[in-house]
Amino acid sequence: MVDENDENDVYRKQNFGNLSGIGKRCALILVDFVNGFVDAEQFGGPHIAAAVQTTIPLLAAFRKAGLPVVHTRVVFADDDANKNVFCIKVPPLLQLTEHAHGSQTVPELAPVQGELIVRKTSASAFFSTGLSEWLHLRGVDTAVIVGCTTSGCIRATVVDAMQFNFSTIVIEDCVGDRALGPHHANLFDMRQKYADVMTRDVFLSALMKA
Amino acid sequence: MVDENDENDVYRKQNFGNLSGIGKRCALILVDFVNGFVDAEQFGGPHIAAAVQTTIPLLAAFRKAGLPVVHTRVVFADDDANKNVFCIKVPPLLQLTEHAHGSQTVPELAPVQGELIVRKTSASAFFSTGLSEWLHLRGVDTAVIVGCTTSGCIRATVVDAMQFNFSTIVIEDCVGDRALGPHHANLFDMRQKYADVMTRDVFLSALMKA
Amino acid sequence: MVDENDENDVYRKQNFGNLSGIGKRCALILVDFVNGFVDAEQFGGPHIAAAVQTTIPLLAAFRKAGLPVVHTRVVFADDDANKNVFCIKVPPLLQLTEHAHGSQTVPELAPVQGELIVRKTSASAFFSTGLSEWLHLRGVDTAVIVGCTTSGCIRATVVDAMQFNFSTIVIEDCVGDRALGPHHANLFDMRQKYADVMTRDVFLSALMKA
Amino acid sequence: MVDENDENDVYRKQNFGNLSGIGKRCALILVDFVNGFVDAEQFGGPHIAAAVQTTIPLLAAFRKAGLPVVHTRVVFADDDANKNVFCIKVPPLLQLTEHAHGSQTVPELAPVQGELIVRKTSASAFFSTGLSEWLHLRGVDTAVIVGCTTSGCIRATVVDAMQFNFSTIVIEDCVGDRALGPHHANLFDMRQKYADVMTRDVFLSALMKA
Repeated sequence: MVDENDENDVYRKQNFGNLSGIGKRCALILVDFVNGFVDAEQFGGPHIAAAVQTTIPLLAAFRKAGLPVVHTRVVFADDDANKNVFCIKVPPLLQLTEHAHGSQTVPELAPVQGELIVRKTSASAFFSTGLSEWLHLRGVDTAVIVGCTTSGCIRATVVDAMQFNFSTIVIEDCVGDRALGPHHANLFDMRQKYADVMTRDVFLSALMKA
Repeated sequence: MVDENDENDVYRKQNFGNLSGIGKRCALILVDFVNGFVDAEQFGGPHIAAAVQTTIPLLAAFRKAGLPVVHTRVVFADDDANKNVFCIKVPPLLQLTEHAHGSQTVPELAPVQGELIVRKTSASAFFSTGLSEWLHLRGVDTAVIVGCTTSGCIRATVVDAMQFNFSTIVIEDCVGDRALGPHHANLFDMRQKYADVMTRDVFLSALMKA
Repeated sequence: MVDENDENDVYRKQNFGNLSGIGKRCALILVDFVNGFVDAEQFGGPHIAAAVQTTIPLLAAFRKAGLPVVHTRVVFADDDANKNVFCIKVPPLLQLTEHAHGSQTVPELAPVQGELIVRKTSASAFFSTGLSEWLHLRGVDTAVIVGCTTSGCIRATVVDAMQFNFSTIVIEDCVGDRALGPHHANLFDMRQKYADVMTRDVFLSALMKA
Repeated sequence: MVDENDENDVYRKQNFGNLSGIGKRCALILVDFVNGFVDAEQFGGPHIAAAVQTTIPLLAAFRKAGLPVVHTRVVFADDDANKNVFCIKVPPLLQLTEHAHGSQTVPELAPVQGELIVRKTSASAFFSTGLSEWLHLRGVDTAVIVGCTTSGCIRATVVDAMQFNFSTIVIEDCVGDRALGPHHANLFDMRQKYADVMTRDVFLSALMKA
């Protein structure tokens, strides 16, 4: 575990960690909630399945409110034609092809008609995917981010969401990782510099009032 | 401190942490080695000044070898015209303007003619700066990254370097942070997923052989 | 001159040339209205000075309405450190440095406090400049584009504005070129595929009603 | 037809139209050579079928030389979930879905294993597709561009190829359009500012010598 006490002092003194808040229109971005990342034998960890369960009512709330929903999947070409440096660092990623079991969205959170499916080959959901302009056209100013892993594709997506000037929110009980140390360390970094970090219920309560 | 032992087991089992290696042509990217980030009263921390000192011979080696060198600075407009979400999370960033003392490169590492100066307003040195295409034109396939902070602009720059398909190297004794917990946690994440992490002397020795 | 009659038939039959319309919030983007492009001895043409004059009341209207305004300039580094392929095709571009007379905005349209100044080294005002995310944060959904040259930086900026999902409007009497053939040919292409093309007065009349 | 004589004088005097040349490693980018664009009833024109035929030996030469090959297709989601501004200007584009006949590569130029297939929803093959970084990883410094239409996706792709700092070559007898006026006008613009324009046989002869 990161000892956050010491860090908190430094960051507070330097005036980090302010809130960017919830804007006028939220979109929910479900990052890599696919079979291969809830499976600890493949890319997952023990806490990701819990994040899936906690996300179910959140997704339902977005659908009920008619707010935009985005699902990302890691999808490489069947013939490895789009192999990249990420695959050199983590070779099993190449197994995540269009029809592989591991790259299908988990059944509990399966996309419905009109929701955007982003196929990606990098860490960030925004990197070379057109996600930013899709959100832009739909009037979104706030990116609500859930999925896995906290220290990987969540962190990369959150940094980009902020860089693309979205108010960015991480739902801390709807993100999971393959190990707890990096999970907590990355929540700390994101809260200080890039995103507002809150529980699902605090977010839903704020959304109702907004 | 992150307990890396536990994490290492999980990541090894899932086949993370492979090396991407040193390619044919390296560029050195010095991220935000500016006065404001070596000053613990502004954005800095106690270990960043040491990273500056360790970087001096590394920069000299790149210059001697005629390899491309890039310096980044955070520079906001004098009239706040380009204020963004990053400034909402961290308001003091807006003080880093073109002529502010805090946004000048530290004297020990001042740019010389022909080195690229990237003015940025985000975390990643690559985000909306044209850095990737500048490196591309100069035949660079390997990004060697130093500067500060490890858990902020270094991490964001490293993720993007990898996403833009550069072999990416972090020189661990040439990066610094405002607190040690996030420094170590981010070195761990980068090593596992995005970059090869090594000391300056190991890198210089490998560069000589390449 | 392009014979537009023939083309119009083909494009109409294939259902091109529909209107994207004026959205909720417009920004005015003045592309490269700098001294060097109103000077026929440098990069200009005879009709660009007229476009400057026609733009004066348009800029005043945006300022009066409190709508975002963006000015672009081509600015290369004094030491040619950021030379690119564009400079190989058009070497005089390298003369447009920060303090060169040719790269200053024409006095009639000089920026005022709070207006964004985009320094660019490419054709499109959006390419690696952060313009899209700046507009996004300010709630802009419609890009109104004027400046020069129609067949160069205007065309490139318009294609990108559309690609970034802005409703895109070209004010045809506020854009100019170094020769008339390319001017008309590019207005034709943009109207069919990327932008609504209209005169300043038609636009201002629509803006008042919106 | 554009009267190019007049324009040529202006552009020559201002020192446009220089050659960027053929670099060390070429890639062939086949833009939208799909059924729907060779069909004059859908998006095509009479000269696109000829461009397909002229491209067959060019593609064979790239394959024989082991050089990278990229095919682009316009592909929108079956449920219109990724509808964008381009579709507002040109509504029939939405019919180009993954399995639609119109969006399949023409049989004569069908991709083989290891060639990159870029699915795009915009004009430029580079826009939010990851194409630039794919080429980068494969050591490509020169983009050789063929396909359709000259005044649409070819022009947009060529401008981006140049902006991403590739030496850019348009093979003039391997690009086609739905009408001849825009075809010639765009070849003129690209030659002056963005690309070297040459016939297939001139290119192949230069490639052999390189």
